[in-house]
Amino acid sequence: MNANDPNRKSWIEYNSNTDFPIQNIPFGIGKFEDGYRVCSRIGDDVIDLVALYELGLFSNISIQKSQLQNQYLNDFISLGKPITNSVRERIADILDVNDKLDAKKFRELFLINAETLEMSLPVKIGDYTDFYSSREHATNVGCMFRDPKNALLPNWLHIPVGYHGRSSSIIVSGKDVIRPKGQQQLSEGSMPVFGPCKQLDFELEMAFIVGKQNVLGTNIPIENAEEHIFGLSLFNDWSARDIQKWEYVPLGPFLSKNFASTISPWIITLEALDSFRVFGPNQDPEVLPYLKYQGAKNFDINLEVSIKPENSTEQVVSKSNFKYMYWNMAQQLAHHTINGCNMNVGDVCASGTISGPTPDSYGSMLEIAWKGTKPIAMKDGTTRSFIHDGDTVSLSGFAEKNGVRIGFGDCKAKILPAN
Amino acid sequence: MNANDPNRKSWIEYNSNTDFPIQNIPFGIGKFEDGYRVCSRIGDDVIDLVALYELGLFSNISIQKSQLQNQYLNDFISLGKPITNSVRERIADILDVNDKLDAKKFRELFLINAETLEMSLPVKIGDYTDFYSSREHATNVGCMFRDPKNALLPNWLHIPVGYHGRSSSIIVSGKDVIRPKGQQQLSEGSMPVFGPCKQLDFELEMAFIVGKQNVLGTNIPIENAEEHIFGLSLFNDWSARDIQKWEYVPLGPFLSKNFASTISPWIITLEALDSFRVFGPNQDPEVLPYLKYQGAKNFDINLEVSIKPENSTEQVVSKSNFKYMYWNMAQQLAHHTINGCNMNVGDVCASGTISGPTPDSYGSMLEIAWKGTKPIAMKDGTTRSFIHDGDTVSLSGFAEKNGVRIGFGDCKAKILPAN
Repeated sequence: MNANDPNRKSWIEYNSNTDFPIQNIPFGIGKFEDGYRVCSRIGDDVIDLVALYELGLFSNISIQKSQLQNQYLNDFISLGKPITNSVRERIADILDVNDKLDAKKFRELFLINAETLEMSLPVKIGDYTDFYSSREHATNVGCMFRDPKNALLPNWLHIPVGYHGRSSSIIVSGKDVIRPKGQQQLSEGSMPVFGPCKQLDFELEMAFIVGKQNVLGTNIPIENAEEHIFGLSLFNDWSARDIQKWEYVPLGPFLSKNFASTISPWIITLEALDSFRVFGPNQDPEVLPYLKYQGAKNFDINLEVSIKPENSTEQVVSKSNFKYMYWNMAQQLAHHTINGCNMNVGDVCASGTISGPTPDSYGSMLEIAWKGTKPIAMKDGTTRSFIHDGDTVSLSGFAEKNGVRIGFGDCKAKILPAN
Repeated sequence: MNANDPNRKSWIEYNSNTDFPIQNIPFGIGKFEDGYRVCSRIGDDVIDLVALYELGLFSNISIQKSQLQNQYLNDFISLGKPITNSVRERIADILDVNDKLDAKKFRELFLINAETLEMSLPVKIGDYTDFYSSREHATNVGCMFRDPKNALLPNWLHIPVGYHGRSSSIIVSGKDVIRPKGQQQLSEGSMPVFGPCKQLDFELEMAFIVGKQNVLGTNIPIENAEEHIFGLSLFNDWSARDIQKWEYVPLGPFLSKNFASTISPWIITLEALDSFRVFGPNQDPEVLPYLKYQGAKNFDINLEVSIKPENSTEQVVSKSNFKYMYWNMAQQLAHHTINGCNMNVGDVCASGTISGPTPDSYGSMLEIAWKGTKPIAMKDGTTRSFIHDGDTVSLSGFAEKNGVRIGFGDCKAKILPAN
């Protein structure tokens, strides 16, 4: 039986709307008393892969304990998909209601209540790239800051536009984010002022984690690109809009982004998402040959953003979908390497803000509140054009089909006041 | 006696115009038969620090062999300046003509002819940032591509503008660079075409290597910034101008840069350069308080670029100087972290192209040949607007004062045809 089989059931009980049914089996890093370990997850339980290894349950898979007792997933991912997929399939077999390995009797040894375990950054990120691949987002930004009649810049329909971001400040869900300070120009032509960012924003993104390297000077052809994608996580590319506006010309965003980006701790494998493939939008004008692809390369993943003010309840402010992407991940990776740029295992490529066609599906406050002109009302009586101190912003995502729901877990952070 | 003392002499003979007199004592990584080792250099000899350690010559310095028998300098640098400076001073004492440690008799054990040893990338680079800090360069680019009357963008005199680059494709001097392929728009409004870059350029830069981290959410105040700088290397930020022109709006350079950057293998410590400090240019308008600095924070380092066509002789095409920088390294680092961005040991910050005031001091072919309108004549009868296949581009640099000449060694690479 395949790990993805919708008919699979587990001997572990979980809620039907869990992000982590037996068909998911994601990978992450848990912080144990004696160090870090590769983990998976089912329902409300975290699965300790070191314990499974010690129980001999990976005995015929070519894997070493050091690859599991590890601060990062990089060594595990570097084993390659034939191995990591075998581990995923084996875990599904162990948890299967018809488990022939009789692992159930050792459940105390390898299951941990998820609420009691802190999750850590899943990968050591060498390089991080952020794309700009949602047509709706690029169009909204173009309408707001440039000419609504020519909202997309001339290169946008030909290139999956991207730029390099900062790896060091990518943090795992749950870590607080301190409001950044920086230069802002309050009106055109005036002298810049210095102070806390007044236009702090989220960006609803997904990130893929590179699973296979290419050597400098070689490229990843688009037909092989998905072999180089280990899996996906949620990604909040925090943005300081006032700092960004002043600094970004001509070399792109810098301090407006590199104070923090929040990533969800679980990497959902590309294999677990296979059933949720959909066709992407028609690309017109025709793309250059190295960007032409075949088949369904977009993924139907429902996305949501909520804001929880300090002393109030959580409130959904956006519902979007990963399927809206104009440029898919295979195109992004083919483009990124067409000049010979080398990707390493653990590198992160984020999608850029994922906005849908309607205002309730926009992926940033900049768009939702349309540059501050349409503040949204919160249940506690306050309004939001941008994010306030004390707000907790959560991204969530799930794909659903044939009764199977594959989710992404938490991607949240609370904003603390500037130092 | 201080390592920098101009009166110091060594028992090792070297040419008076060497880059590596006893006053230099840089650090790098050598590739030995049994693995990588931290090395230093004097004249034409590489100094094996593992051998010095094994000889007991670092016995009263708090350092472990694993920090020296290492693929990268990061662990060594992480020891902190009190330790790494002690190592530098100790090496100078060992090599001193009045060496009291009598190390000379073991010279065979720790000296290797530099020509026989391959040098490796000196640090594991977590994140790489490229600044844009030469006023002359920014002005030249502004004149060429924008309005000569308003060549500098409004933010340029207020912000040390920078952007994130790609760490994975930074390679050590001597490694060939393959000409990148990519999209180019041949005339405004036309459809992009795909092919090998036709406007391949060098950028004459210097890079500093971060020697001390700051925690995410904290900043490095400008008065402490130099404590966080371990040392400097030469840096060639290869650029594909035609790819850059088409891709860079609005998020900055991407594939036009990330195919390769060449760094020199020796890191010259900030301490070795202390005698060459000079005052920077007057900054008008006044900078914001967090960018205000005291003292001499620029460095008088002569820089040169030469091109050697495949079957011809080397020819100098630019003579510039690091002292021309408008924004100094302390300002760059204070700015980079003012929003709480965390820097790690081994991170690289490059200066941006270092152009001087006259055409013979411009730091890129784009400026030297003024966008192809003033090609330069080569000795072999050919001309250059940009870099040809088979060309070897070399950067070199040295500071000189009171009879002491501190140089940077090789920073060169040959361009191979596109795949």
